[in-house]
Amino acid sequence: MITTVRLMAVAALIAVWVGASPARADDAPDPLPSWNDGSLKSNILDYVARVTTEGSPDFVPKPERIATFDNDGTLWVEKPVYTQFVFVVDRVKAVANQHSEWKTKEPFKSVLDGNTQKLLTYGEKGAMALVTATHSGMTTVEFNDIVSAWLKTAKHPRFKRLYTDLTYAPMIELLEYLRANGFTTFIVSGGGTAFMRAYTEQCYGIPPWQVVGSSGETEFRYWDSSPTLVKLPDLLFFDDGPGKAEGINHYIGRQPILAFGNSIGDKEMLEWTANCKGLCFMGLVHHDDAKREYAYGPDSDVGRFPVELMEDALANGWNVVSMKDDWNRIFAWGAPEAAVPAPAPQD
Amino acid sequence: MITTVRLMAVAALIAVWVGASPARADDAPDPLPSWNDGSLKSNILDYVARVTTEGSPDFVPKPERIATFDNDGTLWVEKPVYTQFVFVVDRVKAVANQHSEWKTKEPFKSVLDGNTQKLLTYGEKGAMALVTATHSGMTTVEFNDIVSAWLKTAKHPRFKRLYTDLTYAPMIELLEYLRANGFTTFIVSGGGTAFMRAYTEQCYGIPPWQVVGSSGETEFRYWDSSPTLVKLPDLLFFDDGPGKAEGINHYIGRQPILAFGNSIGDKEMLEWTANCKGLCFMGLVHHDDAKREYAYGPDSDVGRFPVELMEDALANGWNVVSMKDDWNRIFAWGAPEAAVPAPAPQD
Repeated sequence: MITTVRLMAVAALIAVWVGASPARADDAPDPLPSWNDGSLKSNILDYVARVTTEGSPDFVPKPERIATFDNDGTLWVEKPVYTQFVFVVDRVKAVANQHSEWKTKEPFKSVLDGNTQKLLTYGEKGAMALVTATHSGMTTVEFNDIVSAWLKTAKHPRFKRLYTDLTYAPMIELLEYLRANGFTTFIVSGGGTAFMRAYTEQCYGIPPWQVVGSSGETEFRYWDSSPTLVKLPDLLFFDDGPGKAEGINHYIGRQPILAFGNSIGDKEMLEWTANCKGLCFMGLVHHDDAKREYAYGPDSDVGRFPVELMEDALANGWNVVSMKDDWNRIFAWGAPEAAVPAPAPQD
Repeated sequence: MITTVRLMAVAALIAVWVGASPARADDAPDPLPSWNDGSLKSNILDYVARVTTEGSPDFVPKPERIATFDNDGTLWVEKPVYTQFVFVVDRVKAVANQHSEWKTKEPFKSVLDGNTQKLLTYGEKGAMALVTATHSGMTTVEFNDIVSAWLKTAKHPRFKRLYTDLTYAPMIELLEYLRANGFTTFIVSGGGTAFMRAYTEQCYGIPPWQVVGSSGETEFRYWDSSPTLVKLPDLLFFDDGPGKAEGINHYIGRQPILAFGNSIGDKEMLEWTANCKGLCFMGLVHHDDAKREYAYGPDSDVGRFPVELMEDALANGWNVVSMKDDWNRIFAWGAPEAAVPAPAPQD
């Protein structure tokens, strides 16, 4: 038995050395079928083989195989605006009849008038006011029920599908492949933790305690003598930019060896990962597929991927995924060659 | 195969119904050998059988089998004072030569003078000043190294053993037994998260991301162009009392079905667990064994277990563990009948 294991380890090491993809025997099913063969896919397979092969100089024990993923634009669609923001707008409209003051109070008035141009002028402060109004004042259980119900009906303006259908099939395969190889997978997103937890287990196989995001305070209260947790308007943690590296320490407590993002907000997470002791893997999803999804980056309001980040990534040997070239399908429901409707101007 | 599984399920259900302990066949090894046979041990075995038997009305799917444990006094010794406070005092002494101002500045002066009586007069505020001074101003990696080195040499005044040897063997067995039955185990403690993470994986098999505790802010900074996380003096989260229920939501995101504590600070965690939808298990470790460990409760400075909590626990059918009667050994290194030195007055 030991001899067999040793032989397998030696074979795997040789395979790594000659540049083959030892994580997969010729007759084994492809663990990443939605990824086109090419250097990006090879890099992933080689990396996983190196860190999981006992005896390899790059071997990493299972509990240290931490993989972190941004969510919006990395695991699911973020255009034309973040899904959570669509929820916020829908929620403001849904409860407006309980808030007659919103008819004249901004930024609520602009939401109710459907005046997107004016809404945008209120910027981040306006967005936070809307998030606070829709994400607090109820119990944690009620909020989860509200989000779950919304996710069952709300549809994306271009794809006419539920948002939970708009996860990227190649990334789901990657998450599953990593877990099958002893990695623990986490989400590290600027999005709201409570919002994400309503669907991450179903969509990504990631349980609530492996979701790192932005979050508000809660308060433990007795309600009719039953204990309950009420969501408060105060921000507790903001998980974006440097906050992603801080959040990784705060919520995970271990440096990742693999991380994937898609925008400038992921820079510090990738730098923190690149600083790991052993062999590490940094990935960026580049949205360059206007036909099947969207093409954006340097000047985008959401998911900004500036030229400097691209230059840094290429200079540092980070893996920049071309959605157009590296993925043979974007969504699980989309056949490889399926054309999807072009975005309408307002999408 | 299916028939065999069904038969096993039916047998298990019948066993539950007749009050046997179906989690263990007669010839299987006892999963809780440090627990004496009795109602407490039966309650644990029966509970786990009920929630893990498919087809049982009390069945709980694996991802929902969340178990939370307080740390100090529940998983390891907390007398004569919390281990983390011993670290703080040792640390103040160790770095005093870099802080000449401490010679005249309280509460540092009292620590350096060894004047415990005076130190106590500074109360919680004094303790926080000491914690802040010893837990910030270094990187997260440096702090982990400092704690790890301290744990390798510091010894308990009465037991003359490393603090990591002072974990309770019956509770370690319980953690392992729960994980073997598909539970995910978490620590939910008032102690410092970063301090606990230095030993929880080695001692309890609990990885850093399943440690919920009190914590300070960190800041992502470039140090000689390398990314680093610096520990700041500001408190980010206080995980005690109602904070434990809030922390469970914040860090775990799912209500526990089983929880263990040992003091008034665990009340809200146990109430929040008792409010779970299905069958839940609430446990309290009662320190009533002065010979092998300590006997304390109602009037203790640490681990206070007031009379009202005991009355509530008994009235609500919570499980109060008598260390004296329910555990045949306290520590892994202690033979069942081993006498340990009686505490010195200052212990």
